[in-house]
Amino acid sequence: MEIPKKMQAAQLVARGQIELREVDVPVPGPDEVLIRVEACGICGTDVEIRDHGMPGEPPMPFTMGHEYAGVVVQVGSTVDEFKVGDRVTSEVHKGCGRCHNCIMGEYTACLNFGNREKGHSASGMTVDGGFAEYALKHVNTLYKIPDEISFEEAAIITTAGSAFYAIDAMGGYLAGDTVAVIGPGPIGLALAQAAKALGADRVILTGTRKGRLEMGKKMGADYTVNIRDGEDPVQVVKELTNGVGADVVFDAAGVSNSLEDALNIVRPGGAIVLVAFYKGPVTVNISKAVVRNVNLYTVRGEGRRNVRRSLSMAAQRKIDLRPLITHEFPLKDINQAFDTFTKRLDNAMKVIVHPQQ
Amino acid sequence: MEIPKKMQAAQLVARGQIELREVDVPVPGPDEVLIRVEACGICGTDVEIRDHGMPGEPPMPFTMGHEYAGVVVQVGSTVDEFKVGDRVTSEVHKGCGRCHNCIMGEYTACLNFGNREKGHSASGMTVDGGFAEYALKHVNTLYKIPDEISFEEAAIITTAGSAFYAIDAMGGYLAGDTVAVIGPGPIGLALAQAAKALGADRVILTGTRKGRLEMGKKMGADYTVNIRDGEDPVQVVKELTNGVGADVVFDAAGVSNSLEDALNIVRPGGAIVLVAFYKGPVTVNISKAVVRNVNLYTVRGEGRRNVRRSLSMAAQRKIDLRPLITHEFPLKDINQAFDTFTKRLDNAMKVIVHPQQ
Amino acid sequence: MEIPKKMQAAQLVARGQIELREVDVPVPGPDEVLIRVEACGICGTDVEIRDHGMPGEPPMPFTMGHEYAGVVVQVGSTVDEFKVGDRVTSEVHKGCGRCHNCIMGEYTACLNFGNREKGHSASGMTVDGGFAEYALKHVNTLYKIPDEISFEEAAIITTAGSAFYAIDAMGGYLAGDTVAVIGPGPIGLALAQAAKALGADRVILTGTRKGRLEMGKKMGADYTVNIRDGEDPVQVVKELTNGVGADVVFDAAGVSNSLEDALNIVRPGGAIVLVAFYKGPVTVNISKAVVRNVNLYTVRGEGRRNVRRSLSMAAQRKIDLRPLITHEFPLKDINQAFDTFTKRLDNAMKVIVHPQQ
Amino acid sequence: MEIPKKMQAAQLVARGQIELREVDVPVPGPDEVLIRVEACGICGTDVEIRDHGMPGEPPMPFTMGHEYAGVVVQVGSTVDEFKVGDRVTSEVHKGCGRCHNCIMGEYTACLNFGNREKGHSASGMTVDGGFAEYALKHVNTLYKIPDEISFEEAAIITTAGSAFYAIDAMGGYLAGDTVAVIGPGPIGLALAQAAKALGADRVILTGTRKGRLEMGKKMGADYTVNIRDGEDPVQVVKELTNGVGADVVFDAAGVSNSLEDALNIVRPGGAIVLVAFYKGPVTVNISKAVVRNVNLYTVRGEGRRNVRRSLSMAAQRKIDLRPLITHEFPLKDINQAFDTFTKRLDNAMKVIVHPQQ
Repeated sequence: MEIPKKMQAAQLVARGQIELREVDVPVPGPDEVLIRVEACGICGTDVEIRDHGMPGEPPMPFTMGHEYAGVVVQVGSTVDEFKVGDRVTSEVHKGCGRCHNCIMGEYTACLNFGNREKGHSASGMTVDGGFAEYALKHVNTLYKIPDEISFEEAAIITTAGSAFYAIDAMGGYLAGDTVAVIGPGPIGLALAQAAKALGADRVILTGTRKGRLEMGKKMGADYTVNIRDGEDPVQVVKELTNGVGADVVFDAAGVSNSLEDALNIVRPGGAIVLVAFYKGPVTVNISKAVVRNVNLYTVRGEGRRNVRRSLSMAAQRKIDLRPLITHEFPLKDINQAFDTFTKRLDNAMKVIVHPQQ
Repeated sequence: MEIPKKMQAAQLVARGQIELREVDVPVPGPDEVLIRVEACGICGTDVEIRDHGMPGEPPMPFTMGHEYAGVVVQVGSTVDEFKVGDRVTSEVHKGCGRCHNCIMGEYTACLNFGNREKGHSASGMTVDGGFAEYALKHVNTLYKIPDEISFEEAAIITTAGSAFYAIDAMGGYLAGDTVAVIGPGPIGLALAQAAKALGADRVILTGTRKGRLEMGKKMGADYTVNIRDGEDPVQVVKELTNGVGADVVFDAAGVSNSLEDALNIVRPGGAIVLVAFYKGPVTVNISKAVVRNVNLYTVRGEGRRNVRRSLSMAAQRKIDLRPLITHEFPLKDINQAFDTFTKRLDNAMKVIVHPQQ
Repeated sequence: MEIPKKMQAAQLVARGQIELREVDVPVPGPDEVLIRVEACGICGTDVEIRDHGMPGEPPMPFTMGHEYAGVVVQVGSTVDEFKVGDRVTSEVHKGCGRCHNCIMGEYTACLNFGNREKGHSASGMTVDGGFAEYALKHVNTLYKIPDEISFEEAAIITTAGSAFYAIDAMGGYLAGDTVAVIGPGPIGLALAQAAKALGADRVILTGTRKGRLEMGKKMGADYTVNIRDGEDPVQVVKELTNGVGADVVFDAAGVSNSLEDALNIVRPGGAIVLVAFYKGPVTVNISKAVVRNVNLYTVRGEGRRNVRRSLSMAAQRKIDLRPLITHEFPLKDINQAFDTFTKRLDNAMKVIVHPQQ
Repeated sequence: MEIPKKMQAAQLVARGQIELREVDVPVPGPDEVLIRVEACGICGTDVEIRDHGMPGEPPMPFTMGHEYAGVVVQVGSTVDEFKVGDRVTSEVHKGCGRCHNCIMGEYTACLNFGNREKGHSASGMTVDGGFAEYALKHVNTLYKIPDEISFEEAAIITTAGSAFYAIDAMGGYLAGDTVAVIGPGPIGLALAQAAKALGADRVILTGTRKGRLEMGKKMGADYTVNIRDGEDPVQVVKELTNGVGADVVFDAAGVSNSLEDALNIVRPGGAIVLVAFYKGPVTVNISKAVVRNVNLYTVRGEGRRNVRRSLSMAAQRKIDLRPLITHEFPLKDINQAFDTFTKRLDNAMKVIVHPQQ
């Protein structure tokens, strides 16, 4: 496969400012793979990086974009796991491989986050990412894309990966359980879908936006609760469970009262999983957890190789992320793509950028 | 609901000999429920009990039958979990509630097995069971039957309960995994179905009987391996997994070479679950487990409330046990029912007895 | 052993008012044991019950006291686990044995808490307790006292039981770990001791009272941090761990800033265990848990049979609760005993009442 | 620190033949550390390698020795975890960091075992080891040696690491448990000691050699069973546990009947851990595991960073491996050292080689 020397890349050139630039096509190291990027999604974290930066960020300009998929065009000298022509997608995080957490398999909690020299990298966050024609990835972050899945769906598979990681964190076994999901953003919707796909008896999705809740119903939620319409999620769950509460509650909202709601919804001995970053401090009656033997699990990103599970589930069509993709743009329209996403123009949810267009 | 004083019951009157007798309808204690039995399955263990007996067996005559479902007709003084008219099915085992294992929730390993005075009971094994018009159960073994499920399917839900318990034992999280099931008996078939329902990427079912393997395909197996046709399960799994092996192997056969096969099929770091009783000693290279960090989990019966999960999965039609039911008989034909089952007449698999007919 | 018909019991006769009364000696049911109480401790929960009541409380008057030990004087008809003359101590909670949580072994989260008819009981809280010459207990809450342990130490073994349960909840494996304990009350001190006994590399105990911290040092803490002296626990832990944080943090304080402190002290990927009831809502940056993959476990009481482990550890003298016992009174001085405890007279920590004196 | 260009190394030059040779002192790569080896132990695996080879072995000649400790004399460009002068010891295995198992933290089950190019290495097995004046190690396999521990004890800390890994595999929580250890070799003895250090109520050690069992008593075993004297371990355990059986059984013998013994010794619901390589196939009534809900865990080597825990436990003097060290030799006497070990001359157990002498 012919690989050019130069390519177009959407780079962060100054706080808040992304520009298309011509840069060198990178060359893979011994353990790396060069990918021709076919699709790269925009995520809330990208907006955060653009406007406020992130710990471990490289000096500007650098190429953003962490949700991407494409075709292998070159492999490093030790790589036989993938070959040229393979369709691949990736996880964002490569752990350093040498801190306690990475050696123990908890690479999303790498103690050398952002330390490139020691081996950590997070595409589009601490090293160049996927809003470019070509991108490098370490072999340990890559997965082959099953034939059934498009590049677009594969690009955002980390959304499902985060949902499955959240489920993994609390044990991974939901068959027959009553599950509540707070917050119908992309991860909340993916959670509703994943929980149902794993056999949850009932999935109750709560939120404030009618359109999102409707999408939740299409994606697998059995019940939706629109708080803005005056519905009370605590009351709904209690009624559905004879007053006992939900076996598992996922807080994918991260707003001021979502944790308190979770504590009121969960049954004694049940589990809460926190999958959102909260904007600031929250005030909660944490004793409700203690009195009722409720554990709170947390996840960040798509750890413990749950992308592997997600791709299989998508190939089996037990989950389907395609409804989340509302808009697509060529790379040159990167800023319009961001605008569409941040302003939720035309009910935008997941916005995909195509570097080859 | 009118409850008669006398009823018909199929009792074990002597080793190997079951007879229909008229006996008193039992009266529920404070924590018990009286059930009008609508369907009761025959299981391999019933044959074992009839012909060879079991530890903890009560003096003959007693009523056999441990897989049954019916309608609540009377409840004990403390029971409000169920009411007259509820359709219910049950687990076989009620733990004593006072040994270490029961207090810790491992009631299928009750240390007072068969000790009725201390509170243990196993229906149709250590106390009267379900081959009768009416039967008693302790409230902690009962589950409401979802509307979607017939009495017949509910009666054999413990088959799925055993399969889900086996999955529970190794972690319960199979999404995206390659799963091998050795032995296409009822539990093996239920395992293939359950694994697929929980998102297993590929389910490989191995066995020796063509008809059973074909049923396995219908119930969710992606691949079948007929050993009698000279196919080698180890080779098939290795080919499907690029030489790595299956993530999880369930040995539901319990024959002389099945554990060795399991050890050869599983990947390093994978799990084996033993769900069959082996006829006698087996000879194995157990070092293959040690060298490859493979754990062996075991289950017996339908523990850890996996019947709850099974009923939900059946109501959602993610699993479907109905294909296993090949024959049905009225109670008076109990011995014909047993014959059909033991001789596998007409490819019999699960045989159901109807005490109300 | 001669058992009288009448006995002295310290009963709650009105909110805030405990009186000595003559009452009938109870008779054990089939699964119960009658104990001649030799020692019964006073706990913060007793004060709460006396002054404010508790859910599930029986009608007054009833006998309080939930931390007690004594000698078996009579056993129920089915009891062979214990015999007359055995020295025994007990757990507070007997689960109902029929709710989901109890069947699964999580009896401290019994869904029928306080429902005596369904089988739940909590001594001295929902049924008569141990501030009396004799007391009844269900056989499944009892443990033989090793010869090495006095009745006084055995009476308060639930303090260690709660500490070990907290350790159990986060995995039970602390060898080589850095452990922080916030709050040097009885359970915090027991946690420091238990963590050290299980091989924690370093135990750091933080608090505000000098005397308690000094006792912590004697009981196993390697470092103490006196917040009142201006020491900053976060800084101390960070210095001791090269900036990484503690592997495990136990919040045994339950005050307004203790959870926030825990979040600042724990390392990424570490665990927090909440073992205190918080007085009211707390305000926390819960995102610190999410960003750093920190799980929060909770426990209540002395569940999962950790009293069994505690008694062994005490008999081995790997833990030693005797330093916690500061005062002892005969039963007739029950109110003086409570006063000593509540007003922390003479630095009172655990106060023991002797019903036979 | 002055580092010479040449050094002495004991190399395997032909099957069964170790010779001292002068070779180049290696130079650390970016993630590596050069160690001046002060002590290197001989292990059964070394004899196996010398005489029969191992998968992944490099071409001869190469330097053997995988249990060693020494002083850091040079660090790679990215290493700040260690500095020149640090006393360090190491784990044998460095996982590839890119296979499923390594990414998940199960590096002792690396799927690229022996593949140096992909990043796996096992010192003295697949790359040069520690029977040399200097040796290289990847930074992720190293631990600082606490001041309390000598180089000799640190060199064999992997023996404790394997024992703690075995304990980790079954949950890590032994406080109050009855533990049986079959086989009083170095790992069996380390297991007896570790189990006791973690609070096991009773440790029962079984074996055939009187001297080893006596050492077991010194190292923490509460009871020993000498099978050669006609004692029956099953009967002893049953007597000690009122017929119930041991909570946990470690099979560190790996002989023909040890697994069957383990199955007969363990209680229903208990755990068996296999920590030995069996010489060949064993014949067992594996149904005893199934009927009694007993799981069998396996470990190999000193995984999941249990060396970290072991070093702390040794520094705290909760474990003490020094009694295992029976002989020490200078490097030039390497073959005498091996002879002493293989022929168990003078009751040799662990034999240490000193490359600087």
